[in-house]
Amino acid sequence: MQIITTIQLPPYPRGFHLITDLLIEATTPLPSNGLLYFFIQHTSAALTINENADPTVRQDLEKYINQIVPEDIPGLKHTIEGPDDMPAHVKASFFGSSVSIPIINGKAALGTWQGIYLCEFRNRASARKIICGIL
Amino acid sequence: MQIITTIQLPPYPRGFHLITDLLIEATTPLPSNGLLYFFIQHTSAALTINENADPTVRQDLEKYINQIVPEDIPGLKHTIEGPDDMPAHVKASFFGSSVSIPIINGKAALGTWQGIYLCEFRNRASARKIICGIL
Amino acid sequence: MQIITTIQLPPYPRGFHLITDLLIEATTPLPSNGLLYFFIQHTSAALTINENADPTVRQDLEKYINQIVPEDIPGLKHTIEGPDDMPAHVKASFFGSSVSIPIINGKAALGTWQGIYLCEFRNRASARKIICGIL
Repeated sequence: MQIITTIQLPPYPRGFHLITDLLIEATTPLPSNGLLYFFIQHTSAALTINENADPTVRQDLEKYINQIVPEDIPGLKHTIEGPDDMPAHVKASFFGSSVSIPIINGKAALGTWQGIYLCEFRNRASARKIICGIL
Repeated sequence: MQIITTIQLPPYPRGFHLITDLLIEATTPLPSNGLLYFFIQHTSAALTINENADPTVRQDLEKYINQIVPEDIPGLKHTIEGPDDMPAHVKASFFGSSVSIPIINGKAALGTWQGIYLCEFRNRASARKIICGIL
Repeated sequence: MQIITTIQLPPYPRGFHLITDLLIEATTPLPSNGLLYFFIQHTSAALTINENADPTVRQDLEKYINQIVPEDIPGLKHTIEGPDDMPAHVKASFFGSSVSIPIINGKAALGTWQGIYLCEFRNRASARKIICGIL
């Protein structure tokens, strides 16, 4: 893999954010063929691929994930940073720390409805770092 | 990465489907060593690796995922395409849009019990496209 | 991808285990730049990246995942190997069978708080095999 760049995103609020354009811009120009790879260096945020059109998908994802991974399950120990801390770790592993996308004819071969999301799980997050590479 | 082919699967019913043979056939012959990579160009279906033997694993996975990501949580906004639409997006990100498998001695080095699943989350799905590559 | 080695881990108890040092040792020395790749050849265990410092994160992850994927949902069929068997398959696909980490300046470019976890979902597990490669 050739490392292209490391991006420092601006801080985003808790939720799901479409960052496709930002990531593609940072890695342009792409080679004719290959694999585009992104890795987030954090354990309370994630990267995923999901719908790029209707913003209600991102709002409903936030609603679902908060119901599936609630903040108040009994007996937690890792609570010192607040109630959003431990759920953020669980969510981060569910969504994952990297995404990859084939490159065909010099373009990221996302499907018609696919975009790349930053999944921000903390209430007050720092600026997240993403390493970008090409294979 | 070298792009090998793009497969258009036949439409599958909602559920988990073992597609290992189909994917291996589409990418044969493999090189001696490398990484086999598959990417699904959709946001309401996914790829995952799970048990290749007992079909009840796939039936029970469908039961579990429907309980974990129910169709009827209150306050959803992305509902116009039906009650299976938004849960399909959540499930797609839980399972992921790509899988990769090491190639050793010209074969996909899956464990004894591992196979590749198409995870179809829509009630009536179109034919799904999978990009196949080798690194 | 160049296959570096296949590691057979010692059996671990059910839970989340930090295995970063073990995996890095098995793949040292790393090239200057590239991608480090790990694949687990099993369907009831997984690999993920999460917090490397406070051990209560790993304990709370076990608590969360057992609540999200309970052992006793009605109507299961894949029950012959015990109540921990089918949930282990579900969890394995949520966390995933592989992780990858960029290599920068000869080192795995994990974030400050990132480590690699073995996720062991069976009560009594065998020794797990992990294939290690570099791209």
